[in-house]
Amino acid sequence: MSARPTLAIVGGTGALGSGLALRWAAAGYRVVIGSRDAARGAEVAAALSATLASRGSGGRIEALDNRAAAAAGDIVVLAVAFSHQRATLEPIRAELAGKTLVDVTVPLVPPKVMRVQLPPEGSAGQLAQALLGEQTRVVSAFQNVAATHLQGEGPVPCDVLVCGDDRDARQQVIGLVEAAGARGLHGGSIANAAAAEALTSVLIFLNKEYGGHSGIRISGLDGDRG
Amino acid sequence: MSARPTLAIVGGTGALGSGLALRWAAAGYRVVIGSRDAARGAEVAAALSATLASRGSGGRIEALDNRAAAAAGDIVVLAVAFSHQRATLEPIRAELAGKTLVDVTVPLVPPKVMRVQLPPEGSAGQLAQALLGEQTRVVSAFQNVAATHLQGEGPVPCDVLVCGDDRDARQQVIGLVEAAGARGLHGGSIANAAAAEALTSVLIFLNKEYGGHSGIRISGLDGDRG
Repeated sequence: MSARPTLAIVGGTGALGSGLALRWAAAGYRVVIGSRDAARGAEVAAALSATLASRGSGGRIEALDNRAAAAAGDIVVLAVAFSHQRATLEPIRAELAGKTLVDVTVPLVPPKVMRVQLPPEGSAGQLAQALLGEQTRVVSAFQNVAATHLQGEGPVPCDVLVCGDDRDARQQVIGLVEAAGARGLHGGSIANAAAAEALTSVLIFLNKEYGGHSGIRISGLDGDRG
Repeated sequence: MSARPTLAIVGGTGALGSGLALRWAAAGYRVVIGSRDAARGAEVAAALSATLASRGSGGRIEALDNRAAAAAGDIVVLAVAFSHQRATLEPIRAELAGKTLVDVTVPLVPPKVMRVQLPPEGSAGQLAQALLGEQTRVVSAFQNVAATHLQGEGPVPCDVLVCGDDRDARQQVIGLVEAAGARGLHGGSIANAAAAEALTSVLIFLNKEYGGHSGIRISGLDGDRG
């Protein structure tokens, strides 16, 4: 692995995945987006590359199918809808062995997306870790960032809780959070992904109730302003 | 019910309950703390009343046993350890009928309090609502406020998510959050208590990792600074 890892975003054609792709490509990472639909992936990658060019950034985003993207990535990000989590991970299990998987999945259960409905396993993050086994270090992150913030430029106005059982893998992901323009914080074990995942339904409720694109800030830490 | 309801805090001798008692008494509410141990309750109430006097506040805090406190309160707050939640609520079920119960319970499971371990029912708030039935409106709040902030004076540097199935009851509790010096936000149904309850373990982890007394701020709402 080079000093700057290649990042593969499986499900990278969605709003959150493509926002992350833009941020990381602009920060100088090689970014590959994976898609089930090769034509759709190529189309989105071209559009994102054009956005980067229009911003005066040298970055470029490539597209591959999900399995080839997972194979190409030193770190792989899963950014699919919860209903597709298992079906997307199972066929790329071998490609993820020995790597860090950043699970961005939020277990929303339509149509009641404003109601917390965590899975019996506790969280989508725990589901992914159980499915992939010890050979892959699952780190949960980015559940509470509005995609619109990532698709823009400049600092992202919220914090990102980073949860996973392996501290080094969490630290690696905190670096990616910072590259995306936000503050990342060690949030503890993968079981703690439940907190960020549950919060997403609350944030959707808050957006409807008060308007805006809400996120969280952690206040009260030593050295904080808050 | 008068314009300013009487507030009963069951489990009011603990750090969080006594902090709330101080805040609300200073704001002009009649506050009664309930305790299983009458002598202990009286001792804590006297100490809190002395603190209020030393701050130049006219407030005074009374003590009763849990059942008498629940009967005296127009709004009742449950501030006991999760392991005592059911045993505390069952004997005061009749006293809570027709009232709002503010559930402050966090389902921490010692010794691993930094690991999210939500109950099978989803959250302590849902447990309380199921136990008390429709006759009592359960509203979950204050899970993410460090007691030390409530025990001090001045603005509390974090937001409070207020979750419950009854909107009017939530609004009533948001008024109590503001009286305690924090911003309260409608967080949706009682199922959404899971988010705030899970966050507490993450905040304990953050305090250990980074130092401080962490809480959350919601950023990105229309009209926010963030």
